Amino acid sequence: MNLNSNFQLLKESYLFAEVGARVRRYSEENPDKKVIRMDIGDVTLPIPAAIGDALDGAVKDMLSSSTFHGYGPEQGYAFLREKIVEADYAARGVQLGADEVFVSDGAKCDVGNLTDIFGKDVIVGVPNPVYPVYVDSNIMCGRTVENGGIRYIECDRENEYKPVVPGEKLDVIYLCSPNNPTGTVLDKEELKEWVDYAKEHKSLIIFDSAYEAFVQDPTLPKSIYEIEGAKEVAIEVRSFSKTAGFTGLRCGYTVVPKELKGTMADGSEVELRKLWLRRQTTKFNGASYLSQRGAEAVYSPKGSAEVKANIDYYIRNSSILHDGVTALGLKAIGGKNSPYVWIQAPNGLTSWEMFDLLLQRCQLSCTPGSGFGSNGEGCIRLTGFNSFENTKLAVERLADLRL
Amino acid sequence: MNLNSNFQLLKESYLFAEVGARVRRYSEENPDKKVIRMDIGDVTLPIPAAIGDALDGAVKDMLSSSTFHGYGPEQGYAFLREKIVEADYAARGVQLGADEVFVSDGAKCDVGNLTDIFGKDVIVGVPNPVYPVYVDSNIMCGRTVENGGIRYIECDRENEYKPVVPGEKLDVIYLCSPNNPTGTVLDKEELKEWVDYAKEHKSLIIFDSAYEAFVQDPTLPKSIYEIEGAKEVAIEVRSFSKTAGFTGLRCGYTVVPKELKGTMADGSEVELRKLWLRRQTTKFNGASYLSQRGAEAVYSPKGSAEVKANIDYYIRNSSILHDGVTALGLKAIGGKNSPYVWIQAPNGLTSWEMFDLLLQRCQLSCTPGSGFGSNGEGCIRLTGFNSFENTKLAVERLADLRL
Repeated sequence: MNLNSNFQLLKESYLFAEVGARVRRYSEENPDKKVIRMDIGDVTLPIPAAIGDALDGAVKDMLSSSTFHGYGPEQGYAFLREKIVEADYAARGVQLGADEVFVSDGAKCDVGNLTDIFGKDVIVGVPNPVYPVYVDSNIMCGRTVENGGIRYIECDRENEYKPVVPGEKLDVIYLCSPNNPTGTVLDKEELKEWVDYAKEHKSLIIFDSAYEAFVQDPTLPKSIYEIEGAKEVAIEVRSFSKTAGFTGLRCGYTVVPKELKGTMADGSEVELRKLWLRRQTTKFNGASYLSQRGAEAVYSPKGSAEVKANIDYYIRNSSILHDGVTALGLKAIGGKNSPYVWIQAPNGLTSWEMFDLLLQRCQLSCTPGSGFGSNGEGCIRLTGFNSFENTKLAVERLADLRL
Repeated sequence: MNLNSNFQLLKESYLFAEVGARVRRYSEENPDKKVIRMDIGDVTLPIPAAIGDALDGAVKDMLSSSTFHGYGPEQGYAFLREKIVEADYAARGVQLGADEVFVSDGAKCDVGNLTDIFGKDVIVGVPNPVYPVYVDSNIMCGRTVENGGIRYIECDRENEYKPVVPGEKLDVIYLCSPNNPTGTVLDKEELKEWVDYAKEHKSLIIFDSAYEAFVQDPTLPKSIYEIEGAKEVAIEVRSFSKTAGFTGLRCGYTVVPKELKGTMADGSEVELRKLWLRRQTTKFNGASYLSQRGAEAVYSPKGSAEVKANIDYYIRNSSILHDGVTALGLKAIGGKNSPYVWIQAPNGLTSWEMFDLLLQRCQLSCTPGSGFGSNGEGCIRLTGFNSFENTKLAVERLADLRL
């Protein structure tokens, strides 16, 4: 049978595989040296106790006929959607209906699957550097940089790689703030420019705010819906992965407001919410009841305090990294409202040269920025997802290196 | 922006919503009468204790730094894939590699998402009646019955609705055995005909064996790979949902053997396994660690005994239903190797007329067969997913009805 030939257009990504292989080789050759891994963006702290209690309770529910939960609603349980609407939105002045929230098994799935509701001929814009899923999920639909289906949005290196509103019309724009990989956060004015652009061009913004929990500065937005009119142009994707350590538990959500409409080939206007609901009810069967009960506990007084303590811990780490490398004279962004610190390699080193230098001389592994796109060349990403002790040690080793 | 207009080609399905609404209305009007629900195909027994223990252990793992699990492999943990390969396949004489198994959050997602790897121009064949996801996920790609992208495979009513190998060439064939909704199981000879057909026409068979655990007859196949040569033509989708009560926990798996190859537009041959791996690593982030540990326990001595006891319980129910309605002179299939009993309504009643009759006169809710396709008209589906007591009561009420 004929297969989807668009898969041939995908570039094989060996980024994390190559990082892992080089770290492994180094460790084998230097068994006495302990490498501090600051490459992969995965949480390291265990699940907070309040969430553990909720998971225990949910397991118990499953063991008794009277409290057993079989198939749940594809869109997620109301007990969770109502908490989300109240705590993540109403508390920040954003009014949403619980039926505009779609609970899922993770932000990556939602971001990837959203292409299912796009028209075939849309042109999508992605920043550079970028989270590869935005690009690859579109390539699978036949859109590439080469055929013009994917356009790179200019990112201003001098202005923290912030994406610059383009002159041309783009149908779908992917924005990630706080950004992976650069750690940059768009402020309200910058977001407003994008909302205005999308309104003018009838574009859709896919706003990935998987890292919103790391925003410390109270003047910075956590949701695109804090910008007036954004409900008419934006889908927002969020995750409990980084917020509450759910990378292994799997739970996230996507907001598709009723105001958000698009056009069918016959010219008729349709709510994107209805399309996404149909997509999810057809091709998804709800997130695990356990994960949803765990996610609900994120909003309890005890749970939210514990979650905040974990975020504070990571942010202290990323902040130490940022300040440490800056004190060494390196140019770094992020780390203050994001777990990621994005560092420009000195002396014109490439990303991989910097990677090898840090591994060999500091026993420190990073992610080469070039793995996120051509505009990431010459940079590396470090993460706050490690212990406080290792983070301090990493900064000390960097200082000894005298870059 | 332009949306995917294929969504306009989808027929709205009100099947289970309408069933629920009619049951609700009846219960409101007859508050003293208790309706026995045998419509929805969801399990009712709680999770077996061995699986509960494994879930408890997994929650405990998540609460300690040294045993915390963050992102897992997109393809699933080796501990589970190796158990699957050994217990579900090697034990039945089928040799598979653990890298040919893809653990997911459920069979519905896999069945729906598999269209991502199909070529644009493929023609798919589906039986009638049919599980609606096969049809709807293809309509979302622009294939319809009207434009010839979807063809109905003739199902022989006189031979338990078994799908008949067609004269024409189909690129993708969906087979479900034990069947939802009819409860029919294809035997080895019948499956071999399909494997031979697929080899001859270079077709892909998507074999949905979500209900394999209900097969009691030792001569019947549980896997299509029990047929020689099937690895070259078939993907098999399985689920822990019905096997072990995981409808709320979410875990299933899909097997894509290395021998299975397809063609790209440039004529080159590609392993489907590689495409599916790329699809899953790009648009999926692994099933919950808890669900995977729970699924692992299905294969423990205690877990497998408990799971078998639950299956036996459901099969006793569906068998009682089958024999009960048959004794009343109704024509029924399924129920012996499947939790579903498919009953032909007497006296030329339509599916919905039979539904109303059973609801009004027996306080019994079923699923109207017409909801699964035109060929299901005049039939209803009952399920063994209820208590033994309710099942006996349902048969008594049917007997009193004197159909």
